[in-house]
Amino acid sequence: MHKVDKAAQRKKAERLRELHQGPRILVVGSVWDAASARIFELEGFAALATSSAGVAYSLGYPDGERLPPAEMIAAVGRIAAAVDVPVSADMEAGYGRSPEEAAASCRAVLDAGAVGVNLEDAASDAPGALVPAAAHAAKIAAVRATADAYGVPLVVNARTDVFLLKVGEERGRLAEATARLRAYRDAGADCLFAPGVVDAATIRALVTGVGAPLNILATPGCPSVAELEALGVRRLSQGSGPARAALALTQRIARELARSGVYASFQRDAIPYPDANRLFERSPSRGAPGRS
Amino acid sequence: MHKVDKAAQRKKAERLRELHQGPRILVVGSVWDAASARIFELEGFAALATSSAGVAYSLGYPDGERLPPAEMIAAVGRIAAAVDVPVSADMEAGYGRSPEEAAASCRAVLDAGAVGVNLEDAASDAPGALVPAAAHAAKIAAVRATADAYGVPLVVNARTDVFLLKVGEERGRLAEATARLRAYRDAGADCLFAPGVVDAATIRALVTGVGAPLNILATPGCPSVAELEALGVRRLSQGSGPARAALALTQRIARELARSGVYASFQRDAIPYPDANRLFERSPSRGAPGRS
Repeated sequence: MHKVDKAAQRKKAERLRELHQGPRILVVGSVWDAASARIFELEGFAALATSSAGVAYSLGYPDGERLPPAEMIAAVGRIAAAVDVPVSADMEAGYGRSPEEAAASCRAVLDAGAVGVNLEDAASDAPGALVPAAAHAAKIAAVRATADAYGVPLVVNARTDVFLLKVGEERGRLAEATARLRAYRDAGADCLFAPGVVDAATIRALVTGVGAPLNILATPGCPSVAELEALGVRRLSQGSGPARAALALTQRIARELARSGVYASFQRDAIPYPDANRLFERSPSRGAPGRS
Repeated sequence: MHKVDKAAQRKKAERLRELHQGPRILVVGSVWDAASARIFELEGFAALATSSAGVAYSLGYPDGERLPPAEMIAAVGRIAAAVDVPVSADMEAGYGRSPEEAAASCRAVLDAGAVGVNLEDAASDAPGALVPAAAHAAKIAAVRATADAYGVPLVVNARTDVFLLKVGEERGRLAEATARLRAYRDAGADCLFAPGVVDAATIRALVTGVGAPLNILATPGCPSVAELEALGVRRLSQGSGPARAALALTQRIARELARSGVYASFQRDAIPYPDANRLFERSPSRGAPGRS
């Protein structure tokens, strides 16, 4: 594991927190390995967030806490070491049912160099269901206390899957999500995440109702970055979308080669080899991977 | 590290060797992580080969033995564990100048579950130069002896970078490459690799001259798979091309999002989330990652 400088890590956590204070929306780059992280950083993204699905795929697993937590945490460490901007780690439901297990997972991602975490209220052992709000709030509180004791102001992004999993009757979801997110805020979350919402009226109601920075997921039909900013959204992430687009390209390349025996797809648009190498050269002062 | 079954590994090595015997050309899928490996396998590729550059990028490093060897080997292990087909590992110049160091690296990739290695004669400490042919042949012989002692018939793909690095006068390269590859064959290599060659006459002369299966790299201008097969080429790889195409797509996605605040690029062509998860579901009998 790469060595992490705790003073620098504290500053990064503070920086990530500040980026949520507006008035501009924070667009995090949603990444899945060190290469995608470096590319989003070089394109000017001020912070990155891992996609649990994207990371799982890159390691050969389906999404949904199916991989050994140590593999997820090692991947977060490689990503954090590859860039200078703050990195938040998608820790799904915390890799454990109890607050203590979730707190231990978040301590491990702090050790790995991340300065933020996503924690979702989907039940990891019951597909389509949520855990009770109080149970998730207890996880958030345990993570908050662990980060405080650790000495890094970890940015906790608490997520409800009410919309994503279409829980209950549609007309009750806004109230359910709002109540859950407020409970997570009161338990110590810094940012509140409601993936699966795309209509402007619901987004506006959530912004008003939750009383803390709101994170929206860029799913199909979602308003543009400028529109979300005007609605008061403070953070936008892309989840596994970019990772799944890269998988789709890989599939097209493999298919073309297997079926037609030509290789136009990857030769036409690839980054030339010397340029690709340059993407991953970093000046020693910025902490080249492997040197720190 | 995933546990490797040595009897199954021996069979995979034998299978990989058979695939070089013709008359059909073996098109290996050139991969960089477990996700790309799984996708190429599902598209029907009978064997996979890692790209050192692709793997290095995915871990946040430039190509050229710049990453800790243990990180490269761990990535090879994840790739080998994610698929059922044989995997060959690009070990660059062997991560060490001495035959003993190269042999130790190749033993580590056998431990990681690979059944083939690429070993190149580029000098890792002198960009653009080659090591003497005898020095590289000594590495090949040490690797061959180590694999024999290990009990797995490792498929050794010996590479000369005469063409890729444009070593010496152009008119002397075919003779130089032929002499080197014959020396590597005599030292115990199973397959001989001459990346950077694209013209049919030179390819045909190499096929005739080297007296062992020849591997060609699909670089721009290279003949199609069918044409290479007709020339007598026994193996085709794509190197870092597919990986660099995926990096380019990631860069386009990040750039579009950073500059225009929209996200059409990744939403239009992505593999849907449930389908992506299914790519990485494997039946228990086939050895799901993490279970073996």
